Amino acid sequence: MLLEFLHLDRNGRDALYLQLYRGIRDAVTGGQLTAGEKMPSIRRLSEDLKLSKTTVEAAYSQLVMEGYLVSVPQKGCYVAHLSPFSHQNPNENIGTVPQSAPAALRYRFSTDAVDPNAVPVALWQKHLRTALARTDVVTSYGNGPGEDELRSALAEYAYRVRGVRAHPSRIVVGAGLQSLLYLLSGILRERSRLIGLETPGFAQAERVFADCGLAVCQLTCDESGLCPDAPVDAGIRTVYLMPSGRPGSGAPMPMPRRTALLEWAKHTGGLIIEDDHNGELRYHGRPVPALQGFDDGNHVIYIGTFSKVLLPSVRLAYMVLPPALAQQYYARAQWYHPTASRIEQLALAEYIRRGDMDRQLRRLRKIYAAKGDLLLQLLRETFGDHVALVLQETALRVLLTLPGPMTAQQRADAAALRGVEVRPAPAYPGDRRILLGFSGIVYDDIAPAVHRLALAWPDVVVHTQTN
Amino acid sequence: MLLEFLHLDRNGRDALYLQLYRGIRDAVTGGQLTAGEKMPSIRRLSEDLKLSKTTVEAAYSQLVMEGYLVSVPQKGCYVAHLSPFSHQNPNENIGTVPQSAPAALRYRFSTDAVDPNAVPVALWQKHLRTALARTDVVTSYGNGPGEDELRSALAEYAYRVRGVRAHPSRIVVGAGLQSLLYLLSGILRERSRLIGLETPGFAQAERVFADCGLAVCQLTCDESGLCPDAPVDAGIRTVYLMPSGRPGSGAPMPMPRRTALLEWAKHTGGLIIEDDHNGELRYHGRPVPALQGFDDGNHVIYIGTFSKVLLPSVRLAYMVLPPALAQQYYARAQWYHPTASRIEQLALAEYIRRGDMDRQLRRLRKIYAAKGDLLLQLLRETFGDHVALVLQETALRVLLTLPGPMTAQQRADAAALRGVEVRPAPAYPGDRRILLGFSGIVYDDIAPAVHRLALAWPDVVVHTQTN
Repeated sequence: MLLEFLHLDRNGRDALYLQLYRGIRDAVTGGQLTAGEKMPSIRRLSEDLKLSKTTVEAAYSQLVMEGYLVSVPQKGCYVAHLSPFSHQNPNENIGTVPQSAPAALRYRFSTDAVDPNAVPVALWQKHLRTALARTDVVTSYGNGPGEDELRSALAEYAYRVRGVRAHPSRIVVGAGLQSLLYLLSGILRERSRLIGLETPGFAQAERVFADCGLAVCQLTCDESGLCPDAPVDAGIRTVYLMPSGRPGSGAPMPMPRRTALLEWAKHTGGLIIEDDHNGELRYHGRPVPALQGFDDGNHVIYIGTFSKVLLPSVRLAYMVLPPALAQQYYARAQWYHPTASRIEQLALAEYIRRGDMDRQLRRLRKIYAAKGDLLLQLLRETFGDHVALVLQETALRVLLTLPGPMTAQQRADAAALRGVEVRPAPAYPGDRRILLGFSGIVYDDIAPAVHRLALAWPDVVVHTQTN
Repeated sequence: MLLEFLHLDRNGRDALYLQLYRGIRDAVTGGQLTAGEKMPSIRRLSEDLKLSKTTVEAAYSQLVMEGYLVSVPQKGCYVAHLSPFSHQNPNENIGTVPQSAPAALRYRFSTDAVDPNAVPVALWQKHLRTALARTDVVTSYGNGPGEDELRSALAEYAYRVRGVRAHPSRIVVGAGLQSLLYLLSGILRERSRLIGLETPGFAQAERVFADCGLAVCQLTCDESGLCPDAPVDAGIRTVYLMPSGRPGSGAPMPMPRRTALLEWAKHTGGLIIEDDHNGELRYHGRPVPALQGFDDGNHVIYIGTFSKVLLPSVRLAYMVLPPALAQQYYARAQWYHPTASRIEQLALAEYIRRGDMDRQLRRLRKIYAAKGDLLLQLLRETFGDHVALVLQETALRVLLTLPGPMTAQQRADAAALRGVEVRPAPAYPGDRRILLGFSGIVYDDIAPAVHRLALAWPDVVVHTQTN
């Protein structure tokens, strides 16, 4: 068990202590034995490796002498902290491990987190604890397409909240949107290898399609979204859309466009992948029901997620397959392992079944409405006619277009210097659009954060801010 | 919030009570409102939908009258249990929801579960509870390539236990082997679209490659596994292997073959995907270190999993990328969401860091050695020379070849009638090989289970069994 990486050649030319010394030395310089780690005692290591104590002692002494190990009297040997220059393998430390945000950022207009005030964290933790207390659940694999309890709860939830018509047998659960898109791509590639997306596209989905060798084409859009003739003009058979909040404007797809799209699908045998990202979170007025509910059941693949509705740490998404695709899926389902955590699946099933999700949605709609409204109001007061503002309701962010010579990246850098994180909207070079996500920021932080933005971008402030 | 699927047209021709009646009726017959579910009270529904109480009352009365709802005095209305013939949408109930094993199976020779005696379930649950108590963890997204704490722990663990050389920055964590293979396929397709596999292949990996449009070719193997010239003969640049326990014989790849393979990779710029499934679980003698540790660091992608080493419910795997591939991964990493549960990642990091994983491996090796030996011994005593037996150590199963006219499927069916689950080895038509997995079955159940197999297959029993 100890230091199993060591390859000791008992019939080799080199003395065993030397082999042991080299093995441990390389592990220390290679970083596999980490600084500060306690080494096994001489007795334990000699027993485990079937070496004499003298052999292990000789190797340890050499390593201590050369500074790879540090000997602490009465305690044992520890791996030394080497200076970076003593590392011998330049290949080992490549790539940047993405770091958490610098501590200097006091306010984060991001959508990477949810406001802890908005979510009943303790309640979710309680459901998780209940699920994880079920020993039978922990010791066996889950059901490939998802736990039956969760799929039943989702069938009821998706219909009640989003108008989605789904029998549990047509629901497949995965560890997030992308896990499901990989499965789907495997099925779709047998129909056609070209997928149409709304402009400006959606990078996470495009990444999956590219990994699966499916080509993507951007479809013609106008201010109401996807143009009715776009799918036919592009000659595609599959479109990927976010009808509840389009990538550009954040507005829901208008009903006539929905009808036209469903007509196209019906007449050409087309397929629509409906990414209903945060469809539940439209809060000004009643949510627009999902496209899937208006279909005859054969042309829309509905995908729902929970990272913003519940918690970002919950890696759970589900898709509702039309019957023909569900049959294709089941023909190969035995070769797919489940991806979503079984415990989180069962916790979510209970969360929905007991009505906690309904209460959570009601709470979230209120909180997000208040945060979005406050942010819009303060931005208008601060920057007035200098900025164009679009509230992207379901995306939980405000799209800001600023005038002047500064690019969005320069604006973001200036904001960061004031301790505020904002994101350039990634679309085209010289893009001046900035995204202010408000899912993570706490309500009371919005005013001071906007105040700092005013200090960061003085050229576009309307009236003098008093500090 | 209530019955949000309802589309009420307040200016429509039809009375609102009729629209409400139809909406609920369709939801009951479509199965979206489930039998036994309590309906909202008339007062709540009228408030929520902004309808008069009379309207709601009229709709409910009609539904009760026609048998879609059941009214319980003092309690309210419930969704009725309809007979299957009253369902109107034949499309809804397609596909078979995979069921759990029939209760009649008393003994299961499967690898779908682990023996609850073998795993310190309570300890794992404790680590999970600790991780989930961290509110900051629950309310934000995880790190794309995996939690830093886990990647550091894995770097140390993989080196110590498997001889794998990995800096944490080159480790990517995912929700199981397949989630990682999808990412990898996206990178590999830029090099070549053909992957070589050992015969008889590995269906879960092939499924992913097929989903991603990568072609698979089976490489020539002999009794020692992959033939040294096979990759060159097939003209491939990437091979997928299980060197710690080959799919057919379960034996580790012999050292000369390993050296030859690494030479091939070095001279041709080839890549080896090393699926080290249960490499930790070789228990007769010391585990054979991973191939990756013998490489110069540039040609082996190492993949480790935890479903058998820890628990099947833990959807966690990790891969160690060579520097060039790690760079390709980081160039696109921002477009990948994490897949593995964040809580399970942090629990595993602690489990490794505190030495619980080492203790667990020691325990597992003992238990699996004892179970495998007992099973082999009993099978030999019972079926003698009638059967060929191969212990596939890391796969935790025995491969059994039986003579006679019965196919493996017929043998499995006969065993099932006696309450014992065994699996036909899926390879070619008329295959007479059967797999007896022993990870899930409890030690004390092995003898009675083999006794039942003797009753199920009397034609191959050596000596008379007394009942």
